[in-house]
Amino acid sequence: MSDAEIVAEAPLRVACVQMCPNVGEKSTNLAKSEEAIREAAATGARLVVLPELANSGYVFRTRDEAFELSEPVPNGETTELWGSLANSLGITIVAGICEREDSALYNSAVTIGPNGYIGTYRKVHLWGNEALFFEPGNLGFPVFTTDLGRIASFICYDCWFAEVFRCCALKGADILCVPTNWVPIPGQHEGREAMANIIVMAAAHTNSVFVAAADRIGTERGQPFIGQSVIVSYTGWPIGGPASKDGEEIIYADINLSDARKRRTWNEFNHILRDRRPDVYSQETSEPRIRM
Amino acid sequence: MSDAEIVAEAPLRVACVQMCPNVGEKSTNLAKSEEAIREAAATGARLVVLPELANSGYVFRTRDEAFELSEPVPNGETTELWGSLANSLGITIVAGICEREDSALYNSAVTIGPNGYIGTYRKVHLWGNEALFFEPGNLGFPVFTTDLGRIASFICYDCWFAEVFRCCALKGADILCVPTNWVPIPGQHEGREAMANIIVMAAAHTNSVFVAAADRIGTERGQPFIGQSVIVSYTGWPIGGPASKDGEEIIYADINLSDARKRRTWNEFNHILRDRRPDVYSQETSEPRIRM
Repeated sequence: MSDAEIVAEAPLRVACVQMCPNVGEKSTNLAKSEEAIREAAATGARLVVLPELANSGYVFRTRDEAFELSEPVPNGETTELWGSLANSLGITIVAGICEREDSALYNSAVTIGPNGYIGTYRKVHLWGNEALFFEPGNLGFPVFTTDLGRIASFICYDCWFAEVFRCCALKGADILCVPTNWVPIPGQHEGREAMANIIVMAAAHTNSVFVAAADRIGTERGQPFIGQSVIVSYTGWPIGGPASKDGEEIIYADINLSDARKRRTWNEFNHILRDRRPDVYSQETSEPRIRM
Repeated sequence: MSDAEIVAEAPLRVACVQMCPNVGEKSTNLAKSEEAIREAAATGARLVVLPELANSGYVFRTRDEAFELSEPVPNGETTELWGSLANSLGITIVAGICEREDSALYNSAVTIGPNGYIGTYRKVHLWGNEALFFEPGNLGFPVFTTDLGRIASFICYDCWFAEVFRCCALKGADILCVPTNWVPIPGQHEGREAMANIIVMAAAHTNSVFVAAADRIGTERGQPFIGQSVIVSYTGWPIGGPASKDGEEIIYADINLSDARKRRTWNEFNHILRDRRPDVYSQETSEPRIRM
């Protein structure tokens, strides 16, 4: 069978749902997520990504409030709803959720396939006041082998650490799904795509992986969010979006996950992941010589 | 003394020389480099960056040819010329040079200040046929403390490894000087800045460091180069260039190196370099579980 046939056999439509959850209104948020998931599936998407903390909202006032909105995974109402949708629609969902395990809270992303719960990522790099409510993630950066391909997920500020993209690529991920609640950054240039978009483009290219980032919009208790959800090819260039800064919408891209694996070889000498020199990096980073 | 006074005290004009060396024509290349360095200094630049292999040209036919064009550092004619210019003009120069140590060749960047030779970086990640001529760099990623601030340099394909930017930032670099010979990449989008520009923008932002990348132009023995030299702020946005794709020119930016250090703290919880989780990264990358 030729390369062309392999590629032609498995087009995958990916969707990123850009929406506006409202903090505390879990049932409304879940209803909104269901509507968007059904629309994406009806449009042919088989992989649907939702924003960070899509069920709970983001700007908690107290840990008590976050605790009230949290739930166990996978045995909580949110995962069960998304699981039933994944099953009935025959799709895979990656979505941000406010997770509780015993008395610990995590800013998590759950991955659920047509046959049920697949796994959870817990956000490692907490941003701002998240440190008041959540524990740092303790599950590493898992890559799940699914019917669609190898899927990893991480969340928002994790993108500022190129190490995270690299870990997932080294573990074989074909696509990185990023539920996010990107906030405005000082220095953003008017009329340019968000620096967050630039970051995921560079990381997609330098790891040869697809990236699907689903952002939220709106302003919550004074905190604005920037939208501009984007699906990026392994080449580094956007193939879906960027979405608007302020609208609820769904962006799509049709991809062949296998392309990511094929294009890591640049030439007869170079392979983007095998050219790494961890021996040099570890020597150079193990003992920072001055306060940075 | 207030912050504003500290900032106002030390503006630094950085220049990137975009030029077209020709392989084998070392004396012509050196004369051209001298002319550009003098022009940059006359325009007020105190830090001047030249392209990769600026003295020798890039596309060698044989190792013999590369060997003939190589020279010891710092005791070779190229370093001595650049050193005399740095001294007489009171500037610091970072430039790509074809280096020979005993019988080993390196694709190097030399850093020279008004008071003489400062140090050398040898390219770690060799690209394409470079592997036929050069040894991989064996000096790590040095950061030099100079009169101007802390300067690191690395070269071209090194930029595809976010680990390199990170190593230099962790070692305290304020500015990363990148002599480069960027080549066209499959998938580049017409009408957009080069993916190489996107990569250095993302890395500058996520490490809060300045980046000054001096590229070459022209086509050498069939190999085209893309120009688009750029100076990027610690915010990630270009403040000089990008230069044209095909013209010899000098781009400038006036910066305060100390800004890079001040802006690494995002908020009361987050600092872009101290938020790293090397414990998690090393666990995740030490044993790739599948062939990537």
